[in-house]
Amino acid sequence: MTVKQLGLPALVDACARLGVPAVGLWREPVAAYGLAATAELVRDAGLTVTSLCRGGFLTAEDPAGRAAALADNRAAIDEAAALGTDTLVLVSGGLPPGSRDLAGARERIADALAVLAPYAAERGVRLAIEPLHPMFAADRCVVSTLDQALALAERFPAAQVGVVVDTYHVWWDDRAPAAVARAGAAGRIHSFQLADWTTPLPAGVLNGRGQLGDGAVDFRAWVALLEGAGWTGPIEVELFNDGLWARDGVAVLAETARRFAAEVGGGE
Amino acid sequence: MTVKQLGLPALVDACARLGVPAVGLWREPVAAYGLAATAELVRDAGLTVTSLCRGGFLTAEDPAGRAAALADNRAAIDEAAALGTDTLVLVSGGLPPGSRDLAGARERIADALAVLAPYAAERGVRLAIEPLHPMFAADRCVVSTLDQALALAERFPAAQVGVVVDTYHVWWDDRAPAAVARAGAAGRIHSFQLADWTTPLPAGVLNGRGQLGDGAVDFRAWVALLEGAGWTGPIEVELFNDGLWARDGVAVLAETARRFAAEVGGGE
Repeated sequence: MTVKQLGLPALVDACARLGVPAVGLWREPVAAYGLAATAELVRDAGLTVTSLCRGGFLTAEDPAGRAAALADNRAAIDEAAALGTDTLVLVSGGLPPGSRDLAGARERIADALAVLAPYAAERGVRLAIEPLHPMFAADRCVVSTLDQALALAERFPAAQVGVVVDTYHVWWDDRAPAAVARAGAAGRIHSFQLADWTTPLPAGVLNGRGQLGDGAVDFRAWVALLEGAGWTGPIEVELFNDGLWARDGVAVLAETARRFAAEVGGGE
Repeated sequence: MTVKQLGLPALVDACARLGVPAVGLWREPVAAYGLAATAELVRDAGLTVTSLCRGGFLTAEDPAGRAAALADNRAAIDEAAALGTDTLVLVSGGLPPGSRDLAGARERIADALAVLAPYAAERGVRLAIEPLHPMFAADRCVVSTLDQALALAERFPAAQVGVVVDTYHVWWDDRAPAAVARAGAAGRIHSFQLADWTTPLPAGVLNGRGQLGDGAVDFRAWVALLEGAGWTGPIEVELFNDGLWARDGVAVLAETARRFAAEVGGGE
């Protein structure tokens, strides 16, 4: 998504040339290119698919809405399995229209996970609950902190349901380090993503994620925290940013790789 | 601030006609009208000043910046005392330019409170730390939750330093109810403010607070929570909203009073 202006072949080619060994994919471009064709494309390039984004939106109250959400999530799980990734990222969903009941919405997510987690496990896919920044609590994700995400995940086996640690969403939270340690000890960190926090936020606040190094996030501290919690998996960079999307995608990918090396260290 | 388009005489007149018995003031319009003149205006109208907004911005690292902040806060304390309110609201400040050290910034706030709290107490003024929504953590207030605000306040006597509970900033936080109970039991709730959470957020996210009833906040639940924690003080409505500011101020104040009655119940 960081370089959504690139088609999948161009993305795969740029990753190979820049030495980026793995890539997280989103469902929409995969569907547009074709699921089987995408799987073949990344496999032939020697790329690993780190995760598929995204399932979720599990907070509907009406039976038809709930059934549609479950069906869509089963499809997403199937797609993840076909792409060879073991991780489906879940953006859990916001409040239904007119509702003010955050606790009820969170319970409906748990109910849906009870249906989806076994289905995913049978296909070798883990569900990764992503807490989104509290500014998205009403309209996108009622799960706002790592503590909340873990409280949901802990109702299920660690191999089935874990959490996403995305610096953009949790960088401000003084309780996040303890939650990361707890998640790591339990084997529940299923994905680790980086984006920087820059201000002012744009209208709608969705597409203002900062390039690494442009904002307030201390990436070395976060990477050390995750490593301390036992994380040895890939580190994704996921930037939703209108400014980056307006530029040449290959140049943005190269810049991101350079920033990663500068902010995190080591190879990318 | 909800009706900042009204001058102070028009505000005081509208409050009197609508039966609003008390008003929170901001320093800028008070300074423009004159401190002594404002004190006389509200006193003659029989209005109580619930709180003065705002002191704070205590996170500067350089000695000159720190000294300037302390001087400005002492002035704010003096102004609160002159207006006859016992509560100065503090917006603590964001990260200094280039800094990524949230914990360090929070410690500097504690250092400043150690200087300011006794000064305020001598003048009959309590300092009220307002946690701001985490979307303001970088550029406005590194204190993002009631738990964090309380952790700072608890270093000082309850009569000197407490917290502000503003629904706009904490509505999403599942830990807020326990923090409110703890704050109430300790006598540390110094101000209670209402605003609704509406989306999409505007660019800059500062002036998108919703009119009561337009958004996701369950005001009856929050008022019950505060009452359960022993709060018997005033309930302020503080809306930063470009749309409301563009309308006739008296009409907005009347609408706000009606919404308050509908959402909270009882007289306003």
